[in-house]
Amino acid sequence: MSTVSAVLSEVRAANPLVHCMTNTVVPEITANVLLAVGAAPAMIDLPEEAAIFAGIASALLINVGNGSAEQHAGMRLAAPAAVAAGHPWVLDPVAVGGLPVRTALARDLLADRPTAIRGNASEILGLAGASAGGRGVDATDDAESALDTARELADTTGAIVAVSGPVDVIVSPDGRVTRVTGGSPLMPLVIGTGCSLGAVVAACLGAARPAGLDEHDAVVAAHALFAAAGSLAATQTAGPGSFRTAWLDALHTLTPESTLVAVDIAEA
Amino acid sequence: MSTVSAVLSEVRAANPLVHCMTNTVVPEITANVLLAVGAAPAMIDLPEEAAIFAGIASALLINVGNGSAEQHAGMRLAAPAAVAAGHPWVLDPVAVGGLPVRTALARDLLADRPTAIRGNASEILGLAGASAGGRGVDATDDAESALDTARELADTTGAIVAVSGPVDVIVSPDGRVTRVTGGSPLMPLVIGTGCSLGAVVAACLGAARPAGLDEHDAVVAAHALFAAAGSLAATQTAGPGSFRTAWLDALHTLTPESTLVAVDIAEA
Amino acid sequence: MSTVSAVLSEVRAANPLVHCMTNTVVPEITANVLLAVGAAPAMIDLPEEAAIFAGIASALLINVGNGSAEQHAGMRLAAPAAVAAGHPWVLDPVAVGGLPVRTALARDLLADRPTAIRGNASEILGLAGASAGGRGVDATDDAESALDTARELADTTGAIVAVSGPVDVIVSPDGRVTRVTGGSPLMPLVIGTGCSLGAVVAACLGAARPAGLDEHDAVVAAHALFAAAGSLAATQTAGPGSFRTAWLDALHTLTPESTLVAVDIAEA
Repeated sequence: MSTVSAVLSEVRAANPLVHCMTNTVVPEITANVLLAVGAAPAMIDLPEEAAIFAGIASALLINVGNGSAEQHAGMRLAAPAAVAAGHPWVLDPVAVGGLPVRTALARDLLADRPTAIRGNASEILGLAGASAGGRGVDATDDAESALDTARELADTTGAIVAVSGPVDVIVSPDGRVTRVTGGSPLMPLVIGTGCSLGAVVAACLGAARPAGLDEHDAVVAAHALFAAAGSLAATQTAGPGSFRTAWLDALHTLTPESTLVAVDIAEA
Repeated sequence: MSTVSAVLSEVRAANPLVHCMTNTVVPEITANVLLAVGAAPAMIDLPEEAAIFAGIASALLINVGNGSAEQHAGMRLAAPAAVAAGHPWVLDPVAVGGLPVRTALARDLLADRPTAIRGNASEILGLAGASAGGRGVDATDDAESALDTARELADTTGAIVAVSGPVDVIVSPDGRVTRVTGGSPLMPLVIGTGCSLGAVVAACLGAARPAGLDEHDAVVAAHALFAAAGSLAATQTAGPGSFRTAWLDALHTLTPESTLVAVDIAEA
Repeated sequence: MSTVSAVLSEVRAANPLVHCMTNTVVPEITANVLLAVGAAPAMIDLPEEAAIFAGIASALLINVGNGSAEQHAGMRLAAPAAVAAGHPWVLDPVAVGGLPVRTALARDLLADRPTAIRGNASEILGLAGASAGGRGVDATDDAESALDTARELADTTGAIVAVSGPVDVIVSPDGRVTRVTGGSPLMPLVIGTGCSLGAVVAACLGAARPAGLDEHDAVVAAHALFAAAGSLAATQTAGPGSFRTAWLDALHTLTPESTLVAVDIAEA
């Protein structure tokens, strides 16, 4: 718990620059979320620029939801560039499973050994080949149903695997399993709460690595902050519009201490 | 009226998955609007994926505002794929008339017989070749001025044609004409209130068709819900920023009954 | 000061149509900001359409942040088309300096003699070749540090050069220097407050030119309105989410008179 708190403090102190290569729906909320939590966003997709910038930024997010062929080419250059620079990178396998282009892309990118993989249960199952997905970005499976697959994926790829749901489950190659409980049923009614969580995982890793803080706990910290902000915002709102506003405010105003009070973090 | 109410209930019950191929400005608000009304959004533009997904989703939206050549290629595959699967699809002819690429695209897509066409008066006139548009997405004509053109377009294409304005006019090939009155002058000051209406038309059609509900009334239902949410939000807000938030809340909290109380629906 | 007020009134009266070619992160907020201040947005990027539309719109914005190769080709056609039509155009050199594609593009576009150039200090230095930038869209230099470079850039290009920061500095080729003080530390925590300022500079120029109003003062007017809205919104908000909402409301509700009361404008 003290490491989770230290990671959240370090994000505010270090203001990590997060290189985001994400889908067409969520760039604005992703940028606003990163700014709210104390990080700095930069969306850079052109292959020639992405390959350079991935070596400059503190961390890289690759979200394979709805991108162009040009962006996909950039992703294939950026992931190895981040690795070559020693920087963490996060794979978000949006709607992977049934859609062929992104599924092939996401599986190819596993060869570049992402530091973390974040998705809902359907996406984790789809990435591992254990499910065909089916409803696009919808989660049709709960996080626990993907636990065994997440463990195998962590073993095979060396990544910390985070499965989002009403209870988030974070699994590491060393066998650690942490569950984060909090949030609100309104969160899935705001687009980008999942996708921007991937960006905040990148921010937490980008702050943790130079500071020598544990990377499993960095992934947990991102999930804890999101859930805490969701719990807090839900007490103040009348629907998804006002929830979204209050949630962005909460991401900014929550301290590491108030974050930990608002959620339950359990290591199995 | 009872069918309108039944369609709105069915959207909540069936959670129709809406495949959106839309312009670069409105993906986020379109997704948030669909989530607020009880539908599920998925933005999928790559040709290879769009052709598959249009056969999976409950309904397809094609909005020809500001897209890439790659997305346009995807649209040309997705429309026939939706038709082949027996799923409804909606054409939104944003700024069609004076701009050559989208005008040719939208007219070509008429051969795939959209279930509904939704635009402002300038766009409906531009699609039919009766006007050159001129101010881009701006409506420079009111809905009634496009009534005759809308009737002809409905006859020629077999589509339900909805012309948006302070009073919306919905025209069907069988001669039915329905007017929906409500909303707020603040609505055109929030970008995407028109474009996301096209997505909700798709959601209502995607819920109505499998349930055997009348499709003209499904298009009316989408317009009634939008107008009711606009009327309700306008009572609570100080400007377009707070209106947008309150309007998203209202889209989520309005029941079919409270929707029908807030607007006037008149069949001519 | 009276010209600044006259420009703001003219934007409301003339409703200038602003052709925006901008990055993937900010189209929605840019459109909402333009609507809030009384202008009309149209995002049109395809080369064939952009070349036409730049001749129709009242003004053009070219923002070189995260665009596609296809959009860049459109920008290279649109800038000369705006010039040929006698319409003002604005260059926003987002993250120019260290990233090669956009840096070459922005420098090439200087040959089309932008009416105004708006950026933060790092971007103005990067455009002029006086800095390599480094943190992407982050400003790592304050506006005064770019004053000499801004003067040279104004002399060389004939453009009005606006350097954004806690105090904005607007420099013209005739030697005029104006400083605008206002705003809030929350503004840089909302993505797009800089990019949409570029669009409002275009709106003010698009209203000022046909009315024969001074163009330096038009650029000042845009900065004054943004700063005033920021100052006003900051008094009402708990974090960046609610700030964003209140700021959009303020952009809409501020009159020219209340704008001038809320900020300090000083000509050196």
